[in-house]
Amino acid sequence: MRISGLQTAGTPGDVAANVRELDVACARAAASGSELLITPELFLTGYDIGDRLGDLARTDLLTPVQDLARRHRLALVVGLPEHQNGACYNSAVFVGPDGTLLGRHRKTHLFGDLDRRHFSPGDRPTSIVDFGGLRIALLICYDVEFPENVRAAALAGADLIAVPTAQMEPYAFVADHLLRVRAWENQVYVAYVNHDGAEGLLTYVGRSSITAPSGEVLDSVRRGNQLISATVDPAVVARARKDNPYLLDRRPDLYAPALFAPEDRTC
Amino acid sequence: MRISGLQTAGTPGDVAANVRELDVACARAAASGSELLITPELFLTGYDIGDRLGDLARTDLLTPVQDLARRHRLALVVGLPEHQNGACYNSAVFVGPDGTLLGRHRKTHLFGDLDRRHFSPGDRPTSIVDFGGLRIALLICYDVEFPENVRAAALAGADLIAVPTAQMEPYAFVADHLLRVRAWENQVYVAYVNHDGAEGLLTYVGRSSITAPSGEVLDSVRRGNQLISATVDPAVVARARKDNPYLLDRRPDLYAPALFAPEDRTC
Repeated sequence: MRISGLQTAGTPGDVAANVRELDVACARAAASGSELLITPELFLTGYDIGDRLGDLARTDLLTPVQDLARRHRLALVVGLPEHQNGACYNSAVFVGPDGTLLGRHRKTHLFGDLDRRHFSPGDRPTSIVDFGGLRIALLICYDVEFPENVRAAALAGADLIAVPTAQMEPYAFVADHLLRVRAWENQVYVAYVNHDGAEGLLTYVGRSSITAPSGEVLDSVRRGNQLISATVDPAVVARARKDNPYLLDRRPDLYAPALFAPEDRTC
Repeated sequence: MRISGLQTAGTPGDVAANVRELDVACARAAASGSELLITPELFLTGYDIGDRLGDLARTDLLTPVQDLARRHRLALVVGLPEHQNGACYNSAVFVGPDGTLLGRHRKTHLFGDLDRRHFSPGDRPTSIVDFGGLRIALLICYDVEFPENVRAAALAGADLIAVPTAQMEPYAFVADHLLRVRAWENQVYVAYVNHDGAEGLLTYVGRSSITAPSGEVLDSVRRGNQLISATVDPAVVARARKDNPYLLDRRPDLYAPALFAPEDRTC
């Protein structure tokens, strides 16, 4: 399956403008043969827009995404805030090409005051959608920086990790190095789709990428509003896991005490 | 504390020759102000030397290491096979500058037939030595490629991960990318000390390195028999963990079920 990611500065705080931009991107992605388009984190509203986030989270953000998916016959992973039972979540929704909501992820690892000021953390470590013969796990930004989360997704059978993100200076290391290692150590595809430009006090690093299970970067972009695309093939995942059997060679018997009840292990 | 690593092809199967080479390296490391010298995996005997490994493991390999440490007033981490109760381990010993055995690690994650033919796996996930104001964790080669192991060491307070290795083609990706990410995601120093040249059917990738908690490579070498050196400062580790609080931001409540009892998490 061919997938695309939309790196963009978007229009912070202006949902209608972002829906229009997504409409254009959907048309381009579908015309190029992609079946799935991924946006940055909180793309639909903007991220560092202060208290407008909470207000926008109370509006209906899902319907325009469903309309676009249906109109373009294209699956979408879109970052948006979700308000539920008095709590606000930093979420990504997975909408199928017929407009059906197939799944959602709520960011589990909140990043600093920027996240904690607005959001409650999600409580599902991995959120997985089976679509078009692929098992796709959703993570959001900081989530992917924790090896535990990508490992959990790989153990649950993920072929592809779709990561809407809002990665800013001075954390270019994550985009430049960490994602390739996440792909390699779990033998999964990783699509990392970032904001570009500046927003509030943040300067985003761009550098969106799609990485193969071998750690090879299949497509990437440094700056600017651009689409990246690549083909994701579960047979490649299966072959990579035979060549490099990290998942089989794990020793959970050793990890449980060491990771969850670390004690003084001085020799 | 200044530390050094000896990248070398060594003399496979010839313990006396390797002790002589280590003697020279100890003199150079001590003269340059280093207090700890790390060798490659199974440096003292060679690695891909067939059944001679088992025979050599039955000889006294520790005493010459202790003699060298004492003579040069230098701590040593040396890779060697250990025979005990009918089992053979792929080990690294930590010998203090007075010749005392301060700790050992037995490789927990065996790599392919090469390891499994000769060795039993160790059962201690992290092996830690407190030395000279540093908390030093030992891992061996394939061990460091599992994020679980380095995470466990960091949670147990490690400042430095000392990794004797025997990394061969086609796995240069590990040396080129993975180690920097292990350092970054745990905010630890990583010293990765490899064989060079060819041995049996293996061609080693060289590429030894010492990486800072920021992911910056402090010293590295591509090919050849060479020492690498860097200064390791626990204050740098502490500062890095404040700047980048991965260890604090972990959510073990989420990981336990996801990592140890993965189930179908389709939305």
